[in-house]
Amino acid sequence: MDSERIILGIDPGTTTMGYGVIVQNGTRMKLLVMGVLRLNKYASHALRLKKIFDRTTELIREYKPDELAIEAPFYGKNVQSMLKLGRAQGVAIAAALNQDIPVFEYSPKKIKQSITGNGNASKEQVAAMLQTLLAFDEQPEALDATDGLAAAVCHYFQGKTSKTESASYSGWKAFLDQNPGRVKQ
Amino acid sequence: MDSERIILGIDPGTTTMGYGVIVQNGTRMKLLVMGVLRLNKYASHALRLKKIFDRTTELIREYKPDELAIEAPFYGKNVQSMLKLGRAQGVAIAAALNQDIPVFEYSPKKIKQSITGNGNASKEQVAAMLQTLLAFDEQPEALDATDGLAAAVCHYFQGKTSKTESASYSGWKAFLDQNPGRVKQ
Repeated sequence: MDSERIILGIDPGTTTMGYGVIVQNGTRMKLLVMGVLRLNKYASHALRLKKIFDRTTELIREYKPDELAIEAPFYGKNVQSMLKLGRAQGVAIAAALNQDIPVFEYSPKKIKQSITGNGNASKEQVAAMLQTLLAFDEQPEALDATDGLAAAVCHYFQGKTSKTESASYSGWKAFLDQNPGRVKQ
Repeated sequence: MDSERIILGIDPGTTTMGYGVIVQNGTRMKLLVMGVLRLNKYASHALRLKKIFDRTTELIREYKPDELAIEAPFYGKNVQSMLKLGRAQGVAIAAALNQDIPVFEYSPKKIKQSITGNGNASKEQVAAMLQTLLAFDEQPEALDATDGLAAAVCHYFQGKTSKTESASYSGWKAFLDQNPGRVKQ
């Protein structure tokens, strides 16, 4: 099973967190699970962060991914929403760090480009391409879930592994072995 | 030792993280440790997050605080800096959540008000008051460290304990017992 590689992709936001897990076996890519954590039912931002940390931790424990790919927008409307988004990204990243999973970040544009060939593709176009690539039928709920899944597939297409130095964040063990100066932002 | 209560205060930022630990014994408050994690020597924001998570985790393991008080500005200059600040806050919060430590947030103004009686007090005024309250001499390095310590002392003055419902974030165990709707933001 040495050639098997599991990638968890997430898209943490302040109202939903989409996630998907794929497994690469040689040159084959297969969908293990995809889903959405709905956060808008929780009134407090605090509780939402808790849920993001919780779910990310659970996904890592259950699927034991080799790597985490995260959709990380770098721009936003206003400082308040960016602070909240930063916190959401921060707790998800910490959940991975805490379990020694290297984290790779991709901008929304990079993910769309990587999957559809067009950095300005619509959510529906990305979802349609993922359905073709991974042969799944789920539709209605799937649209939000595909955001996380797309990050995982984008990472798969980059051909990066936890052994390269491209990880934005690595686990503690990896960190100790790493030359801090060469960690890419 | 039932009346003893340990509070860890931190001020996570993108270039430094000040921290302080105080112990409350009955009506007495004593300084256990204060310090600064310097982050500007690390070029990558990624590595800085790692260090914040790491140090917060270590402080919790070493001093076993009952509560974490965090200085959390809600406003900033631009979306980029707020995203980074949000991530710094997020990983620190996650380090506490991960070890079942309830988290209490205070704005810089609230902390200054609580310690000096003036919400617009200077850093030096806050530090001077903390020196009087906790009888410590350290000066030069101390100024950044006092930001974290100030959050701990502010929390002490609020008279909150982990048993109240004022925690912004609680540990997993506490969470399971909590009524989500009543968790205060």
